[in-house]
Amino acid sequence: MVVEATLSWQDGLSFRAHTARGELAVGSTETGVTDTFGPKELVAMGLAGCTAMDVASIFEKMRVQPERFEVAVVGESEETHPKRMVHFALRYRVDGEVTAEQARRAVTLSLTRYCGVSATLAASAEITTEIVLNGETLADTAAIGASASETPAR
Amino acid sequence: MVVEATLSWQDGLSFRAHTARGELAVGSTETGVTDTFGPKELVAMGLAGCTAMDVASIFEKMRVQPERFEVAVVGESEETHPKRMVHFALRYRVDGEVTAEQARRAVTLSLTRYCGVSATLAASAEITTEIVLNGETLADTAAIGASASETPAR
Repeated sequence: MVVEATLSWQDGLSFRAHTARGELAVGSTETGVTDTFGPKELVAMGLAGCTAMDVASIFEKMRVQPERFEVAVVGESEETHPKRMVHFALRYRVDGEVTAEQARRAVTLSLTRYCGVSATLAASAEITTEIVLNGETLADTAAIGASASETPAR
Repeated sequence: MVVEATLSWQDGLSFRAHTARGELAVGSTETGVTDTFGPKELVAMGLAGCTAMDVASIFEKMRVQPERFEVAVVGESEETHPKRMVHFALRYRVDGEVTAEQARRAVTLSLTRYCGVSATLAASAEITTEIVLNGETLADTAAIGASASETPAR
Protein backbone atom coordinates (compact mmCIF):
# COMPACT_ATOMS: atom_id res chain seq x y z
CA MET A 1 0.00 0.00 0.00
CA VAL A 2 1.17 3.47 -0.86
CA VAL A 3 0.10 6.85 0.52
CA GLU A 4 0.99 10.12 -1.14
CA ALA A 5 0.87 13.79 -0.24
CA THR A 6 2.26 17.05 -1.59
CA LEU A 7 2.92 20.09 0.56
CA SER A 8 3.12 23.49 -1.08
CA TRP A 9 4.86 26.32 0.70
CA GLN A 10 2.61 29.32 1.36
CA ASP A 11 4.90 31.65 3.30
CA GLY A 12 6.97 31.57 6.46
CA LEU A 13 6.45 28.12 7.96
CA SER A 14 3.01 27.56 6.43
CA PHE A 15 2.22 24.80 3.96
CA ARG A 16 -0.87 23.48 2.24
CA ALA A 17 -1.00 19.68 2.05
CA HIS A 18 -2.88 17.88 -0.73
CA THR A 19 -3.67 14.19 -0.89
CA ALA A 20 -6.04 12.17 -3.07
CA ARG A 21 -8.58 12.62 -0.29
CA GLY A 22 -8.38 16.26 0.61
CA GLU A 23 -6.41 19.24 1.77
CA LEU A 24 -5.22 20.57 5.07
CA ALA A 25 -2.89 23.23 6.42
CA VAL A 26 0.41 22.25 8.05
CA GLY A 27 2.47 24.79 9.87
CA SER A 28 4.17 26.17 12.89
CA THR A 29 2.40 26.15 16.24
CA GLU A 30 3.20 29.85 16.41
CA THR A 31 0.91 30.96 13.61
CA GLY A 32 -2.17 30.92 15.83
CA VAL A 33 -4.30 29.99 12.82
CA THR A 34 -6.88 27.31 13.61
CA ASP A 35 -7.06 24.10 11.61
CA THR A 36 -3.34 24.34 10.88
CA PHE A 37 -1.70 21.23 12.24
CA GLY A 38 1.84 20.66 13.44
CA PRO A 39 3.81 17.73 11.96
CA LYS A 40 3.93 15.84 15.25
CA GLU A 41 0.22 16.41 15.80
CA LEU A 42 -0.35 14.74 12.44
CA VAL A 43 1.78 11.77 13.46
CA ALA A 44 -0.08 11.48 16.79
CA MET A 45 -3.43 11.65 14.97
CA GLY A 46 -2.18 9.02 12.53
CA LEU A 47 -1.36 6.68 15.41
CA ALA A 48 -4.64 7.31 17.25
CA GLY A 49 -6.59 7.02 13.99
CA CYS A 50 -4.96 3.74 13.05
CA THR A 51 -5.66 1.99 16.34
CA ALA A 52 -9.09 3.63 16.67
CA MET A 53 -10.13 2.25 13.28
CA ASP A 54 -8.83 -1.20 14.22
CA VAL A 55 -10.75 -1.21 17.48
CA ALA A 56 -13.95 0.03 15.78
CA SER A 57 -13.56 -2.71 13.19
CA ILE A 58 -12.90 -5.40 15.83
CA PHE A 59 -15.91 -4.23 17.87
CA GLU A 60 -17.99 -4.56 14.72
CA LYS A 61 -16.77 -8.14 14.20
CA MET A 62 -17.53 -8.87 17.88
CA ARG A 63 -21.01 -7.40 17.30
CA VAL A 64 -20.28 -4.89 20.00
CA GLN A 65 -21.82 -1.47 19.52
CA PRO A 66 -20.46 1.06 22.05
CA GLU A 67 -22.51 4.14 22.88
CA ARG A 68 -19.37 6.17 22.81
CA PHE A 69 -15.80 5.45 21.78
CA GLU A 70 -12.92 7.88 21.92
CA VAL A 71 -9.15 7.57 21.59
CA ALA A 72 -6.93 10.27 23.09
CA VAL A 73 -3.21 10.38 22.40
CA VAL A 74 -0.37 12.25 24.04
CA GLY A 75 2.92 12.19 22.14
CA GLU A 76 6.15 13.18 23.87
CA SER A 77 9.41 14.20 22.24
CA GLU A 78 12.96 14.40 23.52
CA GLU A 79 14.13 17.86 24.54
CA THR A 80 17.22 17.93 22.33
CA HIS A 81 17.46 17.95 18.54
CA PRO A 82 16.24 16.14 16.55
CA LYS A 83 13.54 15.90 19.24
CA ARG A 84 12.62 12.35 18.36
CA MET A 85 9.20 11.18 19.51
CA VAL A 86 9.83 8.74 22.34
CA HIS A 87 6.49 8.02 23.99
CA PHE A 88 2.88 7.84 22.94
CA ALA A 89 0.19 7.36 25.58
CA LEU A 90 -3.09 6.11 24.15
CA ARG A 91 -6.27 6.33 26.23
CA TYR A 92 -9.29 4.43 24.92
CA ARG A 93 -12.55 5.52 26.42
CA VAL A 94 -15.42 3.14 25.79
CA ASP A 95 -18.95 3.56 27.12
CA GLY A 96 -21.73 1.06 26.56
CA GLU A 97 -22.37 -2.66 26.65
CA VAL A 98 -18.80 -3.80 26.22
CA THR A 99 -17.01 -6.19 28.58
CA ALA A 100 -13.50 -5.56 29.93
CA GLU A 101 -12.33 -8.64 28.06
CA GLN A 102 -13.72 -7.41 24.76
CA ALA A 103 -12.19 -3.96 25.17
CA ARG A 104 -8.82 -5.33 26.21
CA ARG A 105 -8.81 -7.87 23.40
CA ALA A 106 -9.66 -5.28 20.74
CA VAL A 107 -6.90 -2.92 21.90
CA THR A 108 -4.33 -5.71 22.22
CA LEU A 109 -5.14 -7.11 18.77
CA SER A 110 -4.74 -3.67 17.27
CA LEU A 111 -1.37 -2.99 18.89
CA THR A 112 0.13 -6.43 18.46
CA ARG A 113 -1.29 -7.49 15.11
CA TYR A 114 -3.06 -4.94 12.95
CA CYS A 115 -1.99 -1.34 13.45
CA GLY A 116 0.66 -0.42 10.91
CA VAL A 117 1.31 3.00 12.41
CA SER A 118 1.98 1.69 15.91
CA ALA A 119 4.19 -1.08 14.45
CA THR A 120 6.17 1.63 12.65
CA LEU A 121 6.49 4.01 15.59
CA ALA A 122 7.25 1.23 18.10
CA ALA A 123 10.74 0.88 16.61
CA SER A 124 11.55 4.29 18.07
CA ALA A 125 8.97 5.03 20.77
CA GLU A 126 7.24 3.37 23.67
CA ILE A 127 3.50 3.10 23.18
CA THR A 128 1.40 2.63 26.30
CA THR A 129 -2.33 2.16 26.61
CA GLU A 130 -5.06 2.84 29.12
CA ILE A 131 -8.63 1.68 28.72
CA VAL A 132 -11.40 3.50 30.54
CA LEU A 133 -14.53 1.37 30.28
CA ASN A 134 -17.76 2.95 31.52
CA GLY A 135 -15.70 5.26 33.71
CA GLU A 136 -13.45 2.54 35.22
CA THR A 137 -9.78 2.25 34.31
CA LEU A 138 -8.85 -1.33 33.44
CA ALA A 139 -5.62 -2.84 34.74
CA ASP A 140 -2.96 -4.54 32.58
CA THR A 141 -3.47 -3.08 29.15
CA ALA A 142 -1.08 -3.55 26.23
CA ALA A 143 2.20 -1.73 25.75
CA ILE A 144 4.63 -2.08 22.86
CA GLY A 145 7.73 -0.42 21.60
CA ALA A 146 11.24 0.73 22.14
CA SER A 147 11.33 0.87 25.93
CA ALA A 148 8.15 -0.98 26.86
CA SER A 149 8.61 -3.70 29.45
CA GLU A 150 6.00 -6.07 27.97
CA THR A 151 5.02 -7.38 24.54
CA PRO A 152 7.87 -6.12 22.35
CA ALA A 153 6.67 -5.00 18.91
CA ARG A 154 9.02 -7.14 16.88
CA MET B 1 7.40 18.91 23.86
CA VAL B 2 4.01 17.26 23.98
CA VAL B 3 1.32 16.97 21.32
CA GLU B 4 -2.22 15.90 22.09
CA ALA B 5 -5.25 14.83 20.09
CA THR B 6 -8.59 13.20 20.78
CA LEU B 7 -10.48 11.18 18.21
CA SER B 8 -14.21 10.68 18.64
CA TRP B 9 -15.95 7.84 16.89
CA GLN B 10 -18.69 8.97 14.52
CA ASP B 11 -19.85 5.70 12.95
CA GLY B 12 -18.33 2.81 11.01
CA LEU B 13 -14.65 3.66 10.62
CA SER B 14 -15.10 7.44 10.80
CA PHE B 15 -13.59 9.59 13.52
CA ARG B 16 -13.40 13.30 14.24
CA ALA B 17 -9.97 14.40 15.56
CA HIS B 18 -9.61 17.44 17.81
CA THR B 19 -6.37 19.11 18.81
CA ALA B 20 -5.61 22.45 20.44
CA ARG B 21 -5.24 23.80 16.91
CA GLY B 22 -8.21 22.46 15.05
CA GLU B 23 -10.29 19.55 13.87
CA LEU B 24 -10.12 17.11 11.03
CA ALA B 25 -11.79 13.90 9.89
CA VAL B 26 -9.90 10.61 10.06
CA GLY B 27 -11.32 7.51 8.46
CA SER B 28 -11.22 4.66 6.04
CA THR B 29 -10.13 5.25 2.46
CA GLU B 30 -13.35 3.55 1.44
CA THR B 31 -15.73 6.26 2.67
CA GLY B 32 -15.18 8.41 -0.43
CA VAL B 33 -15.72 11.53 1.69
CA THR B 34 -13.25 14.31 0.86
CA ASP B 35 -11.09 15.89 3.55
CA THR B 36 -11.15 12.64 5.52
CA PHE B 37 -7.60 11.46 5.94
CA GLY B 38 -6.23 7.97 6.42
CA PRO B 39 -3.89 7.33 9.37
CA LYS B 40 -0.88 6.64 7.16
CA GLU B 41 -1.61 9.73 5.08
CA LEU B 42 -1.43 11.72 8.31
CA VAL B 43 1.93 10.16 9.17
CA ALA B 44 3.25 10.89 5.67
CA MET B 45 2.03 14.50 5.92
CA GLY B 46 3.65 14.77 9.34
CA LEU B 47 6.98 13.67 7.89
CA ALA B 48 6.75 15.95 4.85
CA GLY B 49 5.56 18.85 7.01
CA CYS B 50 8.40 18.43 9.49
CA THR B 51 11.17 18.46 6.92
CA ALA B 52 9.41 21.12 4.79
CA MET B 53 9.26 23.46 7.79
CA ASP B 54 12.94 22.80 8.56
CA VAL B 55 13.98 23.56 5.00
CA ALA B 56 11.83 26.71 4.86
CA SER B 57 13.40 27.83 8.12
CA ILE B 58 16.97 27.05 6.93
CA PHE B 59 16.32 28.89 3.64
CA GLU B 60 15.19 31.87 5.69
CA LYS B 61 18.40 31.77 7.74
CA MET B 62 20.41 31.51 4.49
CA ARG B 63 18.45 34.55 3.20
CA VAL B 64 17.26 32.39 0.33
CA GLN B 65 13.75 33.13 -0.93
CA PRO B 66 12.54 30.48 -3.38
CA GLU B 67 9.80 31.37 -5.85
CA ARG B 68 8.27 27.99 -5.27
CA PHE B 69 8.92 25.22 -2.77
CA GLU B 70 7.09 21.94 -2.56
CA VAL B 71 7.66 18.67 -0.72
CA ALA B 72 6.01 15.51 -2.05
CA VAL B 73 6.05 12.28 -0.06
CA VAL B 74 5.27 8.69 -0.99
CA GLY B 75 5.00 6.29 1.93
CA GLU B 76 5.09 2.54 1.33
CA SER B 77 3.91 -0.20 3.67
CA GLU B 78 4.58 -3.90 3.84
CA GLU B 79 1.92 -6.14 2.31
CA THR B 80 1.37 -8.31 5.37
CA HIS B 81 -0.07 -7.32 8.76
CA PRO B 82 0.71 -5.14 10.61
CA LYS B 83 1.65 -3.44 7.31
CA ARG B 84 4.46 -1.47 8.85
CA MET B 85 5.60 1.60 6.91
CA VAL B 86 9.00 0.71 5.46
CA HIS B 87 9.90 3.42 2.98
CA PHE B 88 9.27 7.12 2.57
CA ALA B 89 10.42 8.88 -0.59
CA LEU B 90 10.65 12.66 -0.20
CA ARG B 91 10.87 14.86 -3.29
CA TYR B 92 11.79 18.51 -2.69
CA ARG B 93 10.98 20.77 -5.60
CA VAL B 94 12.62 24.17 -5.37
CA ASP B 95 12.36 26.90 -8.00
CA GLY B 96 14.12 30.24 -7.81
CA GLU B 97 17.50 31.69 -6.96
CA VAL B 98 18.78 28.83 -4.84
CA THR B 99 22.06 27.02 -5.48
CA ALA B 100 22.40 23.23 -5.52
CA GLU B 101 24.65 23.48 -2.47
CA GLN B 102 22.10 25.50 -0.50
CA ALA B 103 19.27 23.13 -1.38
CA ARG B 104 21.32 20.03 -0.58
CA ARG B 105 22.56 21.53 2.67
CA ALA B 106 19.07 22.51 3.85
CA VAL B 107 17.66 19.04 3.16
CA THR B 108 20.63 17.25 4.72
CA LEU B 109 20.51 19.42 7.85
CA SER B 110 16.82 18.68 8.24
CA LEU B 111 17.17 14.92 7.89
CA THR B 112 20.34 14.51 9.92
CA ARG B 113 19.89 17.12 12.63
CA TYR B 114 16.51 18.81 13.02
CA CYS B 115 13.54 16.81 11.87
CA GLY B 116 12.01 14.94 14.79
CA VAL B 117 9.52 13.04 12.66
CA SER B 118 12.15 11.65 10.28
CA ALA B 119 14.36 10.74 13.25
CA THR B 120 11.40 8.83 14.74
CA LEU B 121 10.38 7.03 11.55
CA ALA B 122 13.97 6.22 10.53
CA ALA B 123 14.12 3.57 13.27
CA SER B 124 11.64 1.55 11.23
CA ALA B 125 11.70 2.88 7.68
CA GLU B 126 14.14 3.97 5.02
CA ILE B 127 13.79 7.63 4.09
CA THR B 128 15.17 8.69 0.73
CA THR B 129 15.29 12.14 -0.81
CA GLU B 130 15.33 13.69 -4.25
CA ILE B 131 15.84 17.37 -4.89
CA VAL B 132 14.54 18.91 -8.10
CA LEU B 133 16.06 22.38 -8.39
CA ASN B 134 14.71 24.56 -11.20
CA GLY B 135 13.65 21.42 -13.04
CA GLU B 136 16.98 19.55 -12.64
CA THR B 137 17.30 16.53 -10.36
CA LEU B 138 20.36 16.82 -8.11
CA ALA B 139 22.59 13.81 -7.54
CA ASP B 140 23.65 12.46 -4.13
CA THR B 141 20.94 13.65 -1.80
CA ALA B 142 20.53 12.49 1.78
CA ALA B 143 19.05 9.18 2.89
CA ILE B 144 18.56 7.92 6.43
CA GLY B 145 16.87 5.09 8.18
CA ALA B 146 16.42 1.40 8.70
CA SER B 147 17.74 0.11 5.38
CA ALA B 148 19.44 3.21 3.94
CA SER B 149 22.97 2.64 2.73
CA GLU B 150 24.29 6.05 3.79
CA THR B 151 24.04 8.31 6.85
CA PRO B 152 22.37 6.03 9.39
CA ALA B 153 19.93 7.93 11.59
CA ARG B 154 21.33 6.77 14.90
